[in-house]
Amino acid sequence: MPVNLTAPDPASLHAVPGVRLGVTMAGVRKANRRDLSVIELAAGSTVAGVFTQNRFCAAPVQLCREHLAAADFRGEGIRAILVNTGNANAGTGADGLARARQSCAALADLMGLSAEQILPFSTGVIMETLPVDRIVAGLPAAIAALRADAWDEAALGIMTTDTLPKACSRQVQIGGVTVTVTGISKGAGMIRPNMATMLGYVATDAAIAPGLLQALVTEAADASFNRITIDGDTSTNDSFVLIATHQAAHARIESLDSVEGLALRAAVIAVSQQLAQAIVRDGEGATKFITVMVEGGRDEAECKLVAYAIAHSPLVKTAFFASDPNLGRILAAVGYAGIGDLDQTLIDMHLDNVLVVQAGGRHPDYREEDGQRVMKQAEITVRVSLNRGSATTTVWTCDLSHDYVSINADYRS
Amino acid sequence: MPVNLTAPDPASLHAVPGVRLGVTMAGVRKANRRDLSVIELAAGSTVAGVFTQNRFCAAPVQLCREHLAAADFRGEGIRAILVNTGNANAGTGADGLARARQSCAALADLMGLSAEQILPFSTGVIMETLPVDRIVAGLPAAIAALRADAWDEAALGIMTTDTLPKACSRQVQIGGVTVTVTGISKGAGMIRPNMATMLGYVATDAAIAPGLLQALVTEAADASFNRITIDGDTSTNDSFVLIATHQAAHARIESLDSVEGLALRAAVIAVSQQLAQAIVRDGEGATKFITVMVEGGRDEAECKLVAYAIAHSPLVKTAFFASDPNLGRILAAVGYAGIGDLDQTLIDMHLDNVLVVQAGGRHPDYREEDGQRVMKQAEITVRVSLNRGSATTTVWTCDLSHDYVSINADYRS
Repeated sequence: MPVNLTAPDPASLHAVPGVRLGVTMAGVRKANRRDLSVIELAAGSTVAGVFTQNRFCAAPVQLCREHLAAADFRGEGIRAILVNTGNANAGTGADGLARARQSCAALADLMGLSAEQILPFSTGVIMETLPVDRIVAGLPAAIAALRADAWDEAALGIMTTDTLPKACSRQVQIGGVTVTVTGISKGAGMIRPNMATMLGYVATDAAIAPGLLQALVTEAADASFNRITIDGDTSTNDSFVLIATHQAAHARIESLDSVEGLALRAAVIAVSQQLAQAIVRDGEGATKFITVMVEGGRDEAECKLVAYAIAHSPLVKTAFFASDPNLGRILAAVGYAGIGDLDQTLIDMHLDNVLVVQAGGRHPDYREEDGQRVMKQAEITVRVSLNRGSATTTVWTCDLSHDYVSINADYRS
Repeated sequence: MPVNLTAPDPASLHAVPGVRLGVTMAGVRKANRRDLSVIELAAGSTVAGVFTQNRFCAAPVQLCREHLAAADFRGEGIRAILVNTGNANAGTGADGLARARQSCAALADLMGLSAEQILPFSTGVIMETLPVDRIVAGLPAAIAALRADAWDEAALGIMTTDTLPKACSRQVQIGGVTVTVTGISKGAGMIRPNMATMLGYVATDAAIAPGLLQALVTEAADASFNRITIDGDTSTNDSFVLIATHQAAHARIESLDSVEGLALRAAVIAVSQQLAQAIVRDGEGATKFITVMVEGGRDEAECKLVAYAIAHSPLVKTAFFASDPNLGRILAAVGYAGIGDLDQTLIDMHLDNVLVVQAGGRHPDYREEDGQRVMKQAEITVRVSLNRGSATTTVWTCDLSHDYVSINADYRS
């Protein structure tokens, strides 16, 4: 059961002028599943992305990087996004790359584009051959289905082990004009995006200098998808893409620090965070949504070491599942996070507003029932104070339940 | 169910001249459990140890380090080891340290020693107050129980979530004399010893220059306890101790590279490896014993990054539990292990003797049924070839099952 997550109301998902979406059932892995999506971008759109740091990155990730680089170089824009589920086309060697190229070429032919104008994305089982013939056969139906108001359809179309579609939308006023930011994401396991098997697409009709888009997508990823973890497994296929169609009638944003730039940043980050958190809320087997805050570090890097040590610890995660305030497990994770000169006598820890640990030991006033009360909540914040500096970080994760094991033991069956 | 592990036959555990062991029920956490053990060492014995690198190391670990340093400095030897289960005395601040000192002082009084001659060890729940009164009250019974042939009792006495006691023993000829190496260990969860909640004690009656003992215990730990992982959680209390009583009548070993030194090293490493592997075989919820070999790295450090990424991946571990050759998950772990310039096109992977991946892609001759056959075994070797150097490493781990979640969600209940 997802934690405080419901399917988005389709009426809440504003269309983005310049973007149309089409979804079909291509039988990539199983029949009767929406598994092939096309997102068409109007001429003049600009696209920037961040991709998995996994060195076994999938063939489509390699092609995305190549096509984005070519788009920059030639000034031609990316005009379509192609997404299949059911097969990750990762760990597939040179053959996988050739099949990804074939998919792009086929879509380009149908849309009157060049293959370099397509960004391909695959998600699903790793190390299996991409059934490119079925994908190509499905393309005409996906194109025929293209509609501006199909964000809800696309959110369904990119799901794998997700139990709910993930989408959200905001509108902001920029230069007196209503600008839309709408996005979708997927992912529930193999989630530790470093720049996850997550996919995220956010589009806006804002007019923004193309050179600013990469900085904005990187900032948004760092504030959202790069702060979530379910199982610590960084996928081969993680991708997050930001699209600007520039169709809104305000004066073009030339600086991210201008009033207009700040308004757009806030909206893009808010949409990205909601989409990223939705992945954690729908984490495989998740029953709790946990915010890990680490403060008082010398720099953000060491705060992240501690936050991820806590967020990845199977012992901490099973304790959350059990609603058991076995909080010494959190201290153990702090201790092995990798800060060589950490002084345990400086550490404080709160569970929501309950002070559990002070100066490295159980606080004398801490009562088990106070910890128990917080642990029973569906949403919990762990706050660790290192008290050795002023840096902070926040990471979002979920618990580790029987259902996680069931889902991942059964995934391919 | 432990994987190919049975309780040791008490008759197979040779006594070590100079060592006596006594176990009692002190009611540390629950009644009617063997939870307090004393190991008495004859005068003249030498002790060396390696301890957790967790910065939240427990109070007894801090005292062990202090007492070993004092023993070196003053020339006085460690004469007793005190072990309680049921409480880790970690995350307990200054009060925990005081309580550990009290336990040592009480045992020293009863044995006519100084407190610095005692090495204290605690294992169990973190961040709870050590019930030192119950421990002190139990000491006379433990001392009264001291016997040279009680290794099997001590192996039982140090268990927590272990389902079986872990002990083994070897005898080797050194200088025409039979020398014994006997050891015990415990641990089943919170296991990623860097230098685990594991405890290991190995004793020998070999005569060995005291200056060689630290090098030997470090080498043995690196070849055994530092190569195992169950959940990746490095405990606050991990300790591994090597004891030499020097009572065997051979000429004293002055070099670890002499014929006699090599014979002792081989015996100590063999006993340590068997004890370490026993921990994995009895890993919480384990149904498979998995050997991860990584070869062809530039150095051992990068081989270890890859081996531990595989061994810690919840997705890989659940696939082993399911006997599902979803081997792309292993490639994903290789890819995110942290080798920045890894070239995926060089990677080969074997599952036992089945070549699964060649040059970064699924080998054309690989058949799912061959992978399936290996995955169904209770013991499996994963071999990853990085093909960028000549370094190798080996790590031992287990799968992630429903029982792991049950055990750790219920541990304190």
